[in-house]
Amino acid sequence: MDGNVKILLTNDDGIHAPGLRALAAAVREVGEIVIIAPDTERSAVGHAITTADPLRATEVRTDGELFGLAVSGTPADCVKIAISALLPERPDLVISGINQGPNTGMNVIYSGTVSAATEATMLGVPALAVSLDSFTSREFGPAAAFAARLARLVLERGIPEGILLNVNVPAVPAGDITGVRVTCQGAARFREEFHKRVDPRGRAYWWLGGELMETEEGDGTDSAALREGAISITPLHYDMTSYRCLEEIGRLVVDMEAI
Amino acid sequence: MDGNVKILLTNDDGIHAPGLRALAAAVREVGEIVIIAPDTERSAVGHAITTADPLRATEVRTDGELFGLAVSGTPADCVKIAISALLPERPDLVISGINQGPNTGMNVIYSGTVSAATEATMLGVPALAVSLDSFTSREFGPAAAFAARLARLVLERGIPEGILLNVNVPAVPAGDITGVRVTCQGAARFREEFHKRVDPRGRAYWWLGGELMETEEGDGTDSAALREGAISITPLHYDMTSYRCLEEIGRLVVDMEAI
Repeated sequence: MDGNVKILLTNDDGIHAPGLRALAAAVREVGEIVIIAPDTERSAVGHAITTADPLRATEVRTDGELFGLAVSGTPADCVKIAISALLPERPDLVISGINQGPNTGMNVIYSGTVSAATEATMLGVPALAVSLDSFTSREFGPAAAFAARLARLVLERGIPEGILLNVNVPAVPAGDITGVRVTCQGAARFREEFHKRVDPRGRAYWWLGGELMETEEGDGTDSAALREGAISITPLHYDMTSYRCLEEIGRLVVDMEAI
Repeated sequence: MDGNVKILLTNDDGIHAPGLRALAAAVREVGEIVIIAPDTERSAVGHAITTADPLRATEVRTDGELFGLAVSGTPADCVKIAISALLPERPDLVISGINQGPNTGMNVIYSGTVSAATEATMLGVPALAVSLDSFTSREFGPAAAFAARLARLVLERGIPEGILLNVNVPAVPAGDITGVRVTCQGAARFREEFHKRVDPRGRAYWWLGGELMETEEGDGTDSAALREGAISITPLHYDMTSYRCLEEIGRLVVDMEAI
């Protein structure tokens, strides 16, 4: 690998998250890394960006060494400000993660981890989003090692413009991973419920709770790969057009104009 | 139209925005409306949802009459809490808007207006996102009238499950609108720049500025329709899979496993 390769790392669990530390340790072997990540956890922020307020960037040190810059914004903000303002040159690759918890199915829409990678592709930089399929396991090692291997391959071979790879890794020892599958985004989602409560001053509030629903999806989806112990790689893009519906909606509109 | 039709209205410019008032006035003719919208402007929040904090819902009155509920959250929060907790029954349709400014091309990814409609489709309710192609014009009348017509048609005829219609309307008098086109999401985006400044205490901050770039896209995109004076309707879905890249990424991974 070219020693001049530059890789930007970010996440949505915040700059102090263990998943980011594990990712940094593994990817350091692939190229020169720069870490620019949110100053606090920013999960479920989707593709939010900060326009009404200014952003700050603060150095974070570990044992006296510069670890990275903590930005007072969302994951998409971090990528935008890194590439547009903070970095002296464009990175060759952006990696977002390692997220604590899977980013599969419908939940991809809410994911700050994925949105950071999407932002990179919108700015013309290839990107990976990497998530561990567990909300509690701290065994990021296999996912970090895989991210480093995949990063090397993407840097060598390239991926189509505008595409990010959404990677989900089972939370099992490396030897128990059954393979690598290229998948499509499934329909996995949270079973959500608002808890209505009353505050100490007698006013109502609602708080969103939920748990990941088990899905019975067929082969070929992100969730199905994880369920079978395989790493899932889904190519995503920012284009949300439903091409298969263009014709049907076209017929609807013809009828409309005739009304 | 069935008198029992229920339509939920929301937006991202906040419950007091004139675009929402214009929408409500027009859609009231189509069915029974309920308004549940953010308490303040929440532009560019993408598909953010609020999980770390509770949500509040406060009645907003106009001339003593209940106008709607203001929620202390994002557009996606509003739809989620409306359908899951606040409404006694599911709405038949969700309409988000009328947004002040277009939601076309890459900018769709940042749009709170579109994310509210996406959230509705994820909960199984058909949805429209409606935007006016101007950041300053207050002439919401033609867009509101068109939204009401389209709402009626969608309620009568249905649209495919999981699909929302992203509608962008030129900011011109109704008679000057040249037609209605079914389009795909183009590549329009903002030319963005961070302004670096120093605060009164001597610390640096960055603030995102930008302006919509003129695009020279060919026919068939959302921006091209607007440029030619036509209303653009793009069918969108939450599935971000790049199906055309599945095979290429599949080949990449085969090579990887052989490494």
